[in-house]
Amino acid sequence: MFSNTTKLEIQFGDCDPAGIVYYPNYFRFFDNATAALLSAAFGTHKRLWIERHGIVGIPMVDTGAKFTKPSRFGDVVDIRSEITELGRSSFSVRHTLTNGGEPAVEAHEKRVWVGRDPENPEKIISLPIPDSVRAVLGQQERTAR
Amino acid sequence: MFSNTTKLEIQFGDCDPAGIVYYPNYFRFFDNATAALLSAAFGTHKRLWIERHGIVGIPMVDTGAKFTKPSRFGDVVDIRSEITELGRSSFSVRHTLTNGGEPAVEAHEKRVWVGRDPENPEKIISLPIPDSVRAVLGQQERTAR
Amino acid sequence: MFSNTTKLEIQFGDCDPAGIVYYPNYFRFFDNATAALLSAAFGTHKRLWIERHGIVGIPMVDTGAKFTKPSRFGDVVDIRSEITELGRSSFSVRHTLTNGGEPAVEAHEKRVWVGRDPENPEKIISLPIPDSVRAVLGQQERTAR
Amino acid sequence: MFSNTTKLEIQFGDCDPAGIVYYPNYFRFFDNATAALLSAAFGTHKRLWIERHGIVGIPMVDTGAKFTKPSRFGDVVDIRSEITELGRSSFSVRHTLTNGGEPAVEAHEKRVWVGRDPENPEKIISLPIPDSVRAVLGQQERTAR
Repeated sequence: MFSNTTKLEIQFGDCDPAGIVYYPNYFRFFDNATAALLSAAFGTHKRLWIERHGIVGIPMVDTGAKFTKPSRFGDVVDIRSEITELGRSSFSVRHTLTNGGEPAVEAHEKRVWVGRDPENPEKIISLPIPDSVRAVLGQQERTAR
Repeated sequence: MFSNTTKLEIQFGDCDPAGIVYYPNYFRFFDNATAALLSAAFGTHKRLWIERHGIVGIPMVDTGAKFTKPSRFGDVVDIRSEITELGRSSFSVRHTLTNGGEPAVEAHEKRVWVGRDPENPEKIISLPIPDSVRAVLGQQERTAR
Repeated sequence: MFSNTTKLEIQFGDCDPAGIVYYPNYFRFFDNATAALLSAAFGTHKRLWIERHGIVGIPMVDTGAKFTKPSRFGDVVDIRSEITELGRSSFSVRHTLTNGGEPAVEAHEKRVWVGRDPENPEKIISLPIPDSVRAVLGQQERTAR
Repeated sequence: MFSNTTKLEIQFGDCDPAGIVYYPNYFRFFDNATAALLSAAFGTHKRLWIERHGIVGIPMVDTGAKFTKPSRFGDVVDIRSEITELGRSSFSVRHTLTNGGEPAVEAHEKRVWVGRDPENPEKIISLPIPDSVRAVLGQQERTAR
């Protein structure tokens, strides 16, 4: 389904006393990568498409990662992100981070399309993903930026 | 004026490849220390006193720090925070971080008391600090938690 | 097997524009919780037991989390961490974060016991977990701090 | 003296519950900007020129910032960094962050050139900045990347 690749330079402050990326920072990288994936899919910035679709956001409900190769300050890594599942009100993304062409981290995540309950605007509920969004996210692979 | 001391254990992820606290993290520690100072002053959590005073927050307008001694994973440090200035709509705080009794970082910050413009609720403006707040923050030194 | 519980107050800077904990920060909390678990198990700080055992560290190879309830600025949460598996050179930990007694995040992680290759000190390899460590981590549940 | 400009997109996770950049993150941005400035000056990555000059690093001793305009998720900001002072063993940098052409944050920092004491390699001391480095950092303004 829809995919996008971003490039990232590892910064000094991303790394820990072992000299490698402090692993919680990878989840920050992947959150940014999903924002970039959806911005590429919708052709507009995440802040705008969230407004346009009238939703509250796409909170994370399940994520995980396997780390096979450490990355260090100054390394330039690629993150390829791809939609892997489109549910009624949730979708999944797989992120593959490669460093110098070699796989380094493989991650997955599941997010929910949430907004305000029309009958009780104080309440946040999961909503069906609109067909137009489903069509865009489900389209065959392309290469963006 | 009002002061408060908090204690903090340096975590692995607070440190950088040089094995010492990555300095931007000190500003996170000091932001937490100011929240604790004000919670101690008002006798209630920051989230609540912000609501109670009907303000939007206390954004930072000016901060700085001098670093004289590095701290490392496992060190337990003390941060003494004290109100040093009470302006019409701003106040200043000084933070002294000591490690094993020795001064390690000295910081200062200036924050503004901001809320919604009564004539235009979309607009955020600085507001005069209420007398009741001024009385509490201006009171002589005490030792809290 | 061995378990430990830590308590944590959610800070303003832990949260994102949605007003809830930015999920990558949970992995930072869990990394700290594992350090606390092992410090409780060994009766000494992580920095010291790593030195004592002559290893380089316990890098993460696989982690994941499910998020069922958001936490906000000012919430005080508990993290119960328990060893769930003791392999030849790896071990697993489960973290259960509860907020006001309700389950909020459930995470798992797998780490490897690594050190320098005796035949080539430049090389970092996985090492068998010593029997003394295995005995401590495998002992029945207790409640620490 | 030597200057460099970098561009940065504000990410969701850089922002706090007020919807604006959490101010400690600006110091992370500026640390990255100084690394980019020096990489541009030396024509090679910071990790490499630190090795080449045989030093331990360039730790921060004094930094501060004034915040005049908040930045939000999706904003693209420019950071112009310029060497403002070249001492015997320290140097200063000024960072000007602009958002949509308007000044938003103005910061300064002072760093020290440190390495191992030749007579006691366990000890880290400040060292004179080499003439070759001084010549590069003192050169008139240019525009890099």
